[in-house]
Amino acid sequence: MAEDKVTEDMSSVQITASAEDEDVVDPWNVTSKSDTGIDYDKLIKRFGSSKIDAAVIERFEKVTGHKAHPFLRRGIFFSHRDLNTILTAHEQGKPFYLYTGRGPSSAAMHLGHLIPFIFTKWLQEVFDVPLVIQLTDDEKTLWKDIKLEEAIRLSYENVKDIIAVGFDPEKTFIFSDLEFIGQCPAFYQNMVRVQKCVTFNQVKGIFGFGDSDVIGKISFPAIQASPAFSTSFPFIFGKAKLPCLIPCAIDQDPYFRMTRDVAPRIGMPKPALMHSTFFPALQGAQTKMSASDDNTAIYLTDTPKQIKNKINKHAFSGGCATVEEHREKGGNCDVDISYQYLTFFLDDDDKLMQIKIDYTSGAILTGELKKELITILTALVGAHQERRAKVTTEVIKQFMEIRKLKYNYS
Amino acid sequence: MAEDKVTEDMSSVQITASAEDEDVVDPWNVTSKSDTGIDYDKLIKRFGSSKIDAAVIERFEKVTGHKAHPFLRRGIFFSHRDLNTILTAHEQGKPFYLYTGRGPSSAAMHLGHLIPFIFTKWLQEVFDVPLVIQLTDDEKTLWKDIKLEEAIRLSYENVKDIIAVGFDPEKTFIFSDLEFIGQCPAFYQNMVRVQKCVTFNQVKGIFGFGDSDVIGKISFPAIQASPAFSTSFPFIFGKAKLPCLIPCAIDQDPYFRMTRDVAPRIGMPKPALMHSTFFPALQGAQTKMSASDDNTAIYLTDTPKQIKNKINKHAFSGGCATVEEHREKGGNCDVDISYQYLTFFLDDDDKLMQIKIDYTSGAILTGELKKELITILTALVGAHQERRAKVTTEVIKQFMEIRKLKYNYS
Repeated sequence: MAEDKVTEDMSSVQITASAEDEDVVDPWNVTSKSDTGIDYDKLIKRFGSSKIDAAVIERFEKVTGHKAHPFLRRGIFFSHRDLNTILTAHEQGKPFYLYTGRGPSSAAMHLGHLIPFIFTKWLQEVFDVPLVIQLTDDEKTLWKDIKLEEAIRLSYENVKDIIAVGFDPEKTFIFSDLEFIGQCPAFYQNMVRVQKCVTFNQVKGIFGFGDSDVIGKISFPAIQASPAFSTSFPFIFGKAKLPCLIPCAIDQDPYFRMTRDVAPRIGMPKPALMHSTFFPALQGAQTKMSASDDNTAIYLTDTPKQIKNKINKHAFSGGCATVEEHREKGGNCDVDISYQYLTFFLDDDDKLMQIKIDYTSGAILTGELKKELITILTALVGAHQERRAKVTTEVIKQFMEIRKLKYNYS
Repeated sequence: MAEDKVTEDMSSVQITASAEDEDVVDPWNVTSKSDTGIDYDKLIKRFGSSKIDAAVIERFEKVTGHKAHPFLRRGIFFSHRDLNTILTAHEQGKPFYLYTGRGPSSAAMHLGHLIPFIFTKWLQEVFDVPLVIQLTDDEKTLWKDIKLEEAIRLSYENVKDIIAVGFDPEKTFIFSDLEFIGQCPAFYQNMVRVQKCVTFNQVKGIFGFGDSDVIGKISFPAIQASPAFSTSFPFIFGKAKLPCLIPCAIDQDPYFRMTRDVAPRIGMPKPALMHSTFFPALQGAQTKMSASDDNTAIYLTDTPKQIKNKINKHAFSGGCATVEEHREKGGNCDVDISYQYLTFFLDDDDKLMQIKIDYTSGAILTGELKKELITILTALVGAHQERRAKVTTEVIKQFMEIRKLKYNYS
């Protein structure tokens, strides 16, 4: 494709300043004024993505031969771009790959951070394709008051949690920007290609950057864009120009709207996307969890006792003020955080449905709902901690070494 | 040094828009309205650098034990920053290194491009220190309408001319940004450190960037800054934090004003500088030579016949219109380009002085002056071409391989 052929007008990828009553969703801010959280249908309209509806899920199941993951069935991965292109490629036996990532801003990851990784692991099993995972420690040192050395250290802490999700080392390459970019000329060259296609005006429109932002922030979007191009990883893909599918939380979409605009101009396919909703804070769905307030989230390092206390004390309840009132009027699952968490982590559809019916009718109390959640999360976090403890330096090296994966491309 | 200690206010490194009667000198534009070219004394004042005067030259000769190079004696390297710090370090036996570079915008280099390299080679001999030479092919693909692959190719063409100047491979590391940055994590990490210290407002003030510039341009100054920090080259310097001396044409000073501002904030010494005047175009000293007009410059690929024709036909003359008038009134060396070129390339001070006297008095004609220059340049370019022909792929590899040089640092 000619480098100068622009198939998507960059102006269409820009976020205009939100109207006052609109939810704010960008890579650095997610806030909603509603008790039920972000209005995701409105977001799909505003961002110009497509809804993952029953028809999409049906096609997904037909093409892959797998029952849809609970995150798909329950609308947690709710939006997409060009997913059908990926499904068609898979149907035709054509290769593609997965790309996701994380900005390592603190050593302690919480449950919400796991969502894209859990789903990506499942996608990798379903499709049997390579996966690249970017740790944007350069972004973190640029945005936060932490030194490069500390950002790299956080990458190595976070990578243990990511590996503990259960990825296959023969199919997965994980990299820290600050260490990897200086070891891969092809990646740096793609960064420059992207940086040549995007103006300050455009990143101003897309990300809201201003004149007093440091130049590292201004050029960073090219770094998050580059893994979406298979030519950035010649050791995995050779010279093959493969499409990629990016599972991520919807707040990362601005990066990839920009990437999709640039792709045809540098002769590469546009990445496809699957967007997730946000995992709510314990205090309620209005905000994304805060890494700086321990009591807003269940951390992957929490003890059974901490999990129990946090849920009992902090998980926002949709129940009524008194037992009598609750038995009479029932609880509200739409705002109850314990119920919301169960939709993420209780796999059994029938049981989840029964809980919803019983809680809504008042047949079960908030305490019982919380007890169910505590049991599930204690097991989940405990199992994660066991797997994480087994992630040795040697295992990390297996995932992060620059190497060919188990796939061959011509 | 604490990272937050700012020893030089960034506002002081900004170029204010030139007044109408001022010369324009920045990395992309050099123009003067005067026949005698740029007013360099005014430039020293405007840029806030220091003049290389008789006292500086005397100290240079005393400290190094070498007679000053003609480029120093004749005011071609006319301005500096912190040269005394470097001389003191040398006096005390403390190590430092040299850094210069080139933006490979075309395969054909001209005489003017040689000036910083000829002088840097001499400095390397005088001081016996390591030298790093940066080829900013990333800059060229960002600024010009050329693809990355072409920019890298031009790097490899230009490197032959640079090596032909006579650098010592045991003391010299030459690198292409597009190839090297992806092979050196320490370099990329210093880029990010610099990009974290400089805002868009600052590069706007220093370089005149605007909102419609691509983000690659906006962050590029960090890439030209990074070689001024020894920690960018751990394979040469280990962890040593050495000062560096940068010989360059004065139009590159904005990059290094910025670099000097950033240095203490990332715990590194400020680089010192020696600035050269511009090598004038054949047509006169008002402008820098143009790589796009063959007849404005003597190229390193020119044949003896081309050299003779260009000088005879295009070199601006300071002589009078007729022989009679010239004999009577004499010529003007201040605007005569052949004489100007002799000040660069005729090493013999006495002979140069005699020529000036005789031309000014009218004793010699423009044709005789031109003949002298043709003889010198034909020999110089011919010898360069012979040396360049010997620069094989193997020799290039010797200079560009990532390796330790002959020096040891603790």
